[in-house]
Amino acid sequence: MAGGVGGAKLAEGLTGALDAPEDLTVVVNTGDDAVVHGLCVSPDLDTVMYTLAGMSNTDTGWGVADDTFTTLEAMARLGADTWFQLGDRDLATNIVRSARLRDGVPLSQVTADLCRALGIGARLLPMTDQRVATILETPSGPLEFQEYFVARRHQDPVLGVTFEGVEHAHPAPGVLEALEADVVVVAPSNPFVSLGPILAVPGVRDALAATSARRVAVSPIVGGRALKGPAAAMLQSMGHETSALGVARLWSGLVDELVIDDSDAALAPAIEELGISAVVTGTVMGGRADRERLAHQLLVR
Amino acid sequence: MAGGVGGAKLAEGLTGALDAPEDLTVVVNTGDDAVVHGLCVSPDLDTVMYTLAGMSNTDTGWGVADDTFTTLEAMARLGADTWFQLGDRDLATNIVRSARLRDGVPLSQVTADLCRALGIGARLLPMTDQRVATILETPSGPLEFQEYFVARRHQDPVLGVTFEGVEHAHPAPGVLEALEADVVVVAPSNPFVSLGPILAVPGVRDALAATSARRVAVSPIVGGRALKGPAAAMLQSMGHETSALGVARLWSGLVDELVIDDSDAALAPAIEELGISAVVTGTVMGGRADRERLAHQLLVR
Repeated sequence: MAGGVGGAKLAEGLTGALDAPEDLTVVVNTGDDAVVHGLCVSPDLDTVMYTLAGMSNTDTGWGVADDTFTTLEAMARLGADTWFQLGDRDLATNIVRSARLRDGVPLSQVTADLCRALGIGARLLPMTDQRVATILETPSGPLEFQEYFVARRHQDPVLGVTFEGVEHAHPAPGVLEALEADVVVVAPSNPFVSLGPILAVPGVRDALAATSARRVAVSPIVGGRALKGPAAAMLQSMGHETSALGVARLWSGLVDELVIDDSDAALAPAIEELGISAVVTGTVMGGRADRERLAHQLLVR
Repeated sequence: MAGGVGGAKLAEGLTGALDAPEDLTVVVNTGDDAVVHGLCVSPDLDTVMYTLAGMSNTDTGWGVADDTFTTLEAMARLGADTWFQLGDRDLATNIVRSARLRDGVPLSQVTADLCRALGIGARLLPMTDQRVATILETPSGPLEFQEYFVARRHQDPVLGVTFEGVEHAHPAPGVLEALEADVVVVAPSNPFVSLGPILAVPGVRDALAATSARRVAVSPIVGGRALKGPAAAMLQSMGHETSALGVARLWSGLVDELVIDDSDAALAPAIEELGISAVVTGTVMGGRADRERLAHQLLVR
């Protein structure tokens, strides 16, 4: 189960650590999906897809490496509001996806076709084929995710998170089956806005709670800080402890193990008291070697 | 009244020949409009717009000069059928237009805003804000315009032309008023698929027949051949004489003058017999000087 960058890195590590990439299914958050310039964007799906295709922009965490912005610059000249950056190659993905979605093809099918075209062996699944929108409650009122995250640079304190439309959503085909794998890995993604939407899809949380799979989460908080994005700030603003222990409390009853960083080793006893095995190792994923090493540790016990 | 390339060249000449470009209104065919990759393309409107903005690709007759095709190439990699070529800068126009049309903004308003952003002084009007689709009857059955023109390279004999949806269309705001100008110029565009759709919009043909404006058409046929596109082949396959005289017969009762090329001077008497003044001059428009000279001749009598 994955959001964007952290999930993508770990997914890449897992494809290397598994016998075959086909053994990996990545269930990806789509609560960040939005309509931008009339195009249906799926930022987390694309970050995972581009990463597994070896074409991700690792500097920005979104988009395609070495992409150009010819179209976006021309759109700006035409008066379009271009705060949401889409490179020319990234646009291609969004144009193809949008056209097919408008033709009535489900997102899961579009995603499978895009992945096949890019030669990706792992299976990528959107959490749902229905539209779910992550909404952030802030002192300035409710904000859609991309407005909060991109336009306002996640500066607003988040007081709560809701998922618009989730009551009508169903897990995409294959999602519940994926939770019956040998191992279910919960990526080091934001628990509220990356993993929260996936768990909010009716049936997913219950399936994770009930599965006979070994369930292992990786903490996105290292030394009290998020490696990327607003996870630490959200833990604090929503009244949780800003640490791997705060993360462990969120996952209580849903995972068997929590992988925490060496620098957080002192938190292990408190985590174990929650009935979660604390696995202490280096969790910061730099290059591909880091990702595969961490992935190996998750799989081999 | 204009289609694509021929209309665009003459419109450019007219903006130079008039005291102010604001004195020109161009009513443009939208029967070629289509949805391509989920985007609403308006090829004739864009050819005129790019030409008046000084950014048209004069080699191809469509698109933006020196455009790149990064997005289209990436779309092809993703399995999209890319027979309809859209460059990166051209895509920007189509993305912006599509998003606004989907938001419910009329095409005439979107066009006005695009023109203002590109610094165009003349007024560009789509013939209608409603969707009208030019359909070609061929021995292989009915074909949509872009399929006939681009995908099948206008090789099919055309037996008839119909305009799907035209019975529900209204002239766009300003179209009927434009026909009350001092001079109405019918561009050297294809009479069947470029000017035909405009005249088919309810009210337009009657307004042209009844206007007190001086009405002058320019023949798209020179020496029995079309300067560009399938106009000559269509005249023939639909049983008309393939000459400026054949064109004159189509415009009988609708124009006061027909401008024909020096090389067709011998046809002048037969044209005059139709009650149309034949104006003989050089009608082949190469560069800007040619266009302005021809435009001057249309305006000054």
